[in-house]
Amino acid sequence: MALREEWQGFSAGHWTDDVNVRDFIQRNYTQYDGDESFLAGPTEATDKLWGKVQELQKQERSNGGVLDCETEVVSGLTAYGPGYIDPELKDLEKVVGLQTDKPLKRAFMPYGGIKMAQQAAESYGYKINSKYDQIFSEYHKTHNQAVFDAYTPEMRAARHSHVITGLPDTYGRGRIVGDYRRVALYGIDFLIAKKQEDLLNCGDGTMTDDVIRLREEISEQIRALRGIKAMAKIYGYDISQPARDAHEAVQWLYFGYLAAIKTQNGAAMSVGRISTFLDIYIQRDLVAGKIDEAQAQELIDHLVLKFRMVKFARIPSYNELFSGDPVWATLEMAGLGQDGRHMVTKNDFRFLHTLENMGPAPEPNLTVLYSKRLPEAFRRYAAKISITTSSIQYENDDVMRPVWGDDYSICCCVSATQTGKEMQFFGARANLAKCLNYAINGGKDLKYTDKQGNHMQVGPELAPITSEYLDYDEVMHKFGIMMDWLAGLYVNILDLIQYMHDKYYYEAAEMALIDTDVRRTFATGIAGFSHVVDSLSAIKYARVRTVRDESGLVVDYVPEGDFPRYGNDDDRADDIAVWLLKTFMAKIKKHHTYRNSEPTTSILTITSNVVYGKATGALPDGRPAYTPFSPGANPSYGAEKNGLLASLNSVAKLPYEYALDGISNTQTINPGALGTDEQQRIGNLVNVLDGYFANGAHHLNVNVFGVEKLKDAMEHPEKPEYANFTIRVSGYAVKFIDLTREQQLDVIARTCHDHM
Amino acid sequence: MALREEWQGFSAGHWTDDVNVRDFIQRNYTQYDGDESFLAGPTEATDKLWGKVQELQKQERSNGGVLDCETEVVSGLTAYGPGYIDPELKDLEKVVGLQTDKPLKRAFMPYGGIKMAQQAAESYGYKINSKYDQIFSEYHKTHNQAVFDAYTPEMRAARHSHVITGLPDTYGRGRIVGDYRRVALYGIDFLIAKKQEDLLNCGDGTMTDDVIRLREEISEQIRALRGIKAMAKIYGYDISQPARDAHEAVQWLYFGYLAAIKTQNGAAMSVGRISTFLDIYIQRDLVAGKIDEAQAQELIDHLVLKFRMVKFARIPSYNELFSGDPVWATLEMAGLGQDGRHMVTKNDFRFLHTLENMGPAPEPNLTVLYSKRLPEAFRRYAAKISITTSSIQYENDDVMRPVWGDDYSICCCVSATQTGKEMQFFGARANLAKCLNYAINGGKDLKYTDKQGNHMQVGPELAPITSEYLDYDEVMHKFGIMMDWLAGLYVNILDLIQYMHDKYYYEAAEMALIDTDVRRTFATGIAGFSHVVDSLSAIKYARVRTVRDESGLVVDYVPEGDFPRYGNDDDRADDIAVWLLKTFMAKIKKHHTYRNSEPTTSILTITSNVVYGKATGALPDGRPAYTPFSPGANPSYGAEKNGLLASLNSVAKLPYEYALDGISNTQTINPGALGTDEQQRIGNLVNVLDGYFANGAHHLNVNVFGVEKLKDAMEHPEKPEYANFTIRVSGYAVKFIDLTREQQLDVIARTCHDHM
Repeated sequence: MALREEWQGFSAGHWTDDVNVRDFIQRNYTQYDGDESFLAGPTEATDKLWGKVQELQKQERSNGGVLDCETEVVSGLTAYGPGYIDPELKDLEKVVGLQTDKPLKRAFMPYGGIKMAQQAAESYGYKINSKYDQIFSEYHKTHNQAVFDAYTPEMRAARHSHVITGLPDTYGRGRIVGDYRRVALYGIDFLIAKKQEDLLNCGDGTMTDDVIRLREEISEQIRALRGIKAMAKIYGYDISQPARDAHEAVQWLYFGYLAAIKTQNGAAMSVGRISTFLDIYIQRDLVAGKIDEAQAQELIDHLVLKFRMVKFARIPSYNELFSGDPVWATLEMAGLGQDGRHMVTKNDFRFLHTLENMGPAPEPNLTVLYSKRLPEAFRRYAAKISITTSSIQYENDDVMRPVWGDDYSICCCVSATQTGKEMQFFGARANLAKCLNYAINGGKDLKYTDKQGNHMQVGPELAPITSEYLDYDEVMHKFGIMMDWLAGLYVNILDLIQYMHDKYYYEAAEMALIDTDVRRTFATGIAGFSHVVDSLSAIKYARVRTVRDESGLVVDYVPEGDFPRYGNDDDRADDIAVWLLKTFMAKIKKHHTYRNSEPTTSILTITSNVVYGKATGALPDGRPAYTPFSPGANPSYGAEKNGLLASLNSVAKLPYEYALDGISNTQTINPGALGTDEQQRIGNLVNVLDGYFANGAHHLNVNVFGVEKLKDAMEHPEKPEYANFTIRVSGYAVKFIDLTREQQLDVIARTCHDHM
Repeated sequence: MALREEWQGFSAGHWTDDVNVRDFIQRNYTQYDGDESFLAGPTEATDKLWGKVQELQKQERSNGGVLDCETEVVSGLTAYGPGYIDPELKDLEKVVGLQTDKPLKRAFMPYGGIKMAQQAAESYGYKINSKYDQIFSEYHKTHNQAVFDAYTPEMRAARHSHVITGLPDTYGRGRIVGDYRRVALYGIDFLIAKKQEDLLNCGDGTMTDDVIRLREEISEQIRALRGIKAMAKIYGYDISQPARDAHEAVQWLYFGYLAAIKTQNGAAMSVGRISTFLDIYIQRDLVAGKIDEAQAQELIDHLVLKFRMVKFARIPSYNELFSGDPVWATLEMAGLGQDGRHMVTKNDFRFLHTLENMGPAPEPNLTVLYSKRLPEAFRRYAAKISITTSSIQYENDDVMRPVWGDDYSICCCVSATQTGKEMQFFGARANLAKCLNYAINGGKDLKYTDKQGNHMQVGPELAPITSEYLDYDEVMHKFGIMMDWLAGLYVNILDLIQYMHDKYYYEAAEMALIDTDVRRTFATGIAGFSHVVDSLSAIKYARVRTVRDESGLVVDYVPEGDFPRYGNDDDRADDIAVWLLKTFMAKIKKHHTYRNSEPTTSILTITSNVVYGKATGALPDGRPAYTPFSPGANPSYGAEKNGLLASLNSVAKLPYEYALDGISNTQTINPGALGTDEQQRIGNLVNVLDGYFANGAHHLNVNVFGVEKLKDAMEHPEKPEYANFTIRVSGYAVKFIDLTREQQLDVIARTCHDHM
């Protein structure tokens, strides 16, 4: 069977007949076991373009965070003519395509909620053309309006009190990774033909609601594929056929991603597992002598440059939750195949090398799929880049591969999803710390009041705990009931949001690049994790005295005596952590989930730990009221007494199988703690990662710097060395100077390990 | 318990606490057993206004059928300022409110399908502002687009070949009768409060798709109620509270209906059972001396005047199906209560009297809910009006009341629906005559060809019948299989259409006036009924020779010998008719129906019998190819040999329980056949109706005129006496001169009984 011309040089397989990118990769990728010495520096074009982008970023920052904002044009695949970083430099751009007509200009995306889109623009001093008021309220309803139409008073109360938080009810839900590689490998026409085949085979003719919905969705996908082709045409590219070389492959793939970010504004708009895939094209061109390493690196640099430029218009309350303008353009490297071969290619080095060629940057959210079985040279190079840039996260391929196979992507920060085969119904998190308060106080909220000025009754009116000292069994019993309520309410809120999102803001362009027969996960999350664990431990192993206000509600707690805390490799506390995760997950699983999706949960809070904490009263572990939570699955601030490794051991005990949406752990290590010279630091960090992940842990954000640097950067953001100073916070990387002062203080308050 | 001020003089009951219009009626209506002598002629205001409207209608006719067409404004509750028949006469209008800003101007209603809305305007020489192209394709998808996105190729083929016809996939589905009386009895604020209560009680918190959908719908209903209030305000009325007198009651009720026709363009936009209800208000005012009979009649005349002015912009193919601009503003009179009291009031006389005060007219579609137990004076008056105007239809209250209670309305022509408690998923009809052709020809269509020029394979590829003479058992066997296929496909098409209609064109204003806990029927229909019956009879009782084309398909039939035909009170044929109805209904019922609605069927074809017949080849009963079917449940043209009563007896054998959506029968009687003077004619017509309905028949359209009059009107439409010459066609009344010539010829071809 003759391969089509664009595929000459590739090894054939199932992928030539069916959409099967994994098969293509497995048959064609070239392992690389060497070190970074082959890498090339930035080209002149890269320097010029990145220089220009940095200039724009500086203007953006001095402009209050937004450089420009669309007010006239509704974002869409073909809403704009071509846009370039700098029209005068456009011939230098190896990868073209912007979200709007100008770099860093934020698009007008009303479908998630017209009011939010207007408010976002207004918060930066722009005013959306008022004609859209009527169009997106009277003629077309938006997601936000629909969700609020269906919310119950109980749901509104839980949302208001922040016991359930960060719900995607005002913007895109995100978390869907289109298989953008398909555009490069197959071209649009083949993808359309396959979707048309799917439409023909969709349903046996019995038109149940599910079949009708799916048939309409496939039609929308086909329409979107045609739109993507038209979008590429605007930039002068015909992407109807497969990419013929590395340059086209990079460009075609980027057009796929560009379609997603032109049509959706989800919190996480991830790129996916593209590194190994693209290496195959680059390798073919390198071997054929069509390009050299400098050109190869330039392609990757320019692609990454585009990922660094992705922007959305957000409202202030969103920015409070997810500070620093993250888009979670998450992009994976490394990992192993099911056949045991590691999947490290030269391209993984190239992607990491962008942090050297263009300096550190929060996006794309570079993620190493880690295993001790990865080549040492690669592990060392990643560790080296971590130490110098604090811009990388690590996730355990050895725990994910058995569940998700060897072609998963990370959507958002820690959530695996089989590339092109899955989508996620994303759903923020339940505040279990507040839930514990409710259990003790009979469902009454400490912070929020009702119209009569009384403590708001948010949870069920359980009999409150009235004793002076908390009894462990009583607290556990009531906490169980309250978690039951919260889990149920939470899942039902998400059911509603996902339904409306499908109805009013369906991700046609992304889903067009995913199998029609898609598997759907239903991602919930936990906030306040460590504080609940420590609180229960305090009640169990010490004595906790309650402090009540005049209405009898417990407003503060005084732990008397010592108790084990999560984060010290002490099973007494860590067992409670495991129990909490398993129990919450079991309660989530009880409930009906939209489209029969598979419920999962995560322990991750991004930067929202600050906002969630601000909404939550004091806790039995002694955490003062309205102070930040520790982020994600991190131990509480100050709890870790036994050094980094003990802390990591505690987190590693959480069974990934119960938190398939991910367990986020963020650690900061003082460079001195890792060693006295670079080689020693690299070696030690590799050892830490090897050991941590061998224990079955899921994720680690690695920061290597001292607290002094943070304090200096907070006080002197104008210093040039801090312009791109990037740190890993829970779940993503961010420029430190882009955080609010409150969040900077929170980061400073976090444990910085100065010994192992 | 003191009644609120607006309700003084009414007898209290459950209706004062809950929305329960039936209870209000039953406790408060005043039976009237007298004759028409109390009636008042038209007031000067009525004459002036009706004169003006007739002028406008004449202009409309000379303008090609449309007087004016909106091209800039999307129709909506508050899209326009106030509109009047004639601004100079506006103080004469006792009932105000137009669909647009000008009388007879057709609104722009894009939600059912933007292309159709544009095409409708264009077919009359208007051009919709092109800005709506983008708004209603890119920003907001319309019902039509959505339906076609989900259709299967099989569905498209069946639609193309007209084996399934008249699907509401390009405009509103209609057939929903809001309980417009509620606006008058309760005022909007009370209705909003009740819907808010319903929203609170909707679902137990588990957010299944059904609960989410319904919660959103209730929110849309509340929004619509607020919109209706705002719409009334534009005309200077505050309808937040109950109507205080007859004038307000009429006006409030009309605002409810106006909301429906401003937001929906369903084929049938019926008014409902309002006569007895309004009489209660009029009677209260008459007794109190607030108004006299002339004023009472004026109110009803002006209300009817408004119903006569309802217009929608339609595309040419729609007008072919439903000729003469019908809107099915169906409005009921009479009937009996469950307690045995007849419900005839003076108002029933007043509504019939509008045909005298303002002359005959097709709308509103006046419907007498008939029973022998109605007062004789009323039956005689109705008969008299029938004889002079041919504008009334009769439906058997004695067969409907056991099924639908005593407060049902007729939506469209013959379809009962419990007022305010039900909605209907309407769905046109299956062409069983064509289905019989398919059974004989192995699913191949005689008229339509595929791309290769071959007979289109529409039905399943069954082995065709190959014998020269048709065998009854073989035909019945294959016809059963083919009906199974057709019933399944038909239901699934409707499932899909209803799903999309709910999604893209939900009837919020109408559903706001219906109970939240609504019962849904799923209305199917049969076309070609009599021809299938006669064909099967021919095969069974005579010999039918097939005539084949070169491809072997049967293209014509030669019945040899005589056979019994439906319409002669001959059980041999009539039993086949009953079998056909029962069998088709059983096959329909096998299938999943959208929202678990209750499947029903009808035997009614409106004027579409002409178009359906044109798409259907020759039949074994000798009907030539591509000629009109007989309409509804009527016997075939020329089949009735034994006079009117025998014909009526045949139709009466069809069990209503198997055709709850209605069995339409249209008969034309030569005045001479009814008697030699008016009193004799009235007496005989009453006897005919009494007997027919006592036999359990469902419906009768009564026309009283001779064929000569029709022929003269066809040739001389300009004669003044034909300007308002109205006839009953299958399911509605129409001005004869508004029919196409083809349809006029069809009407002329129908049996005109000249003996009983």
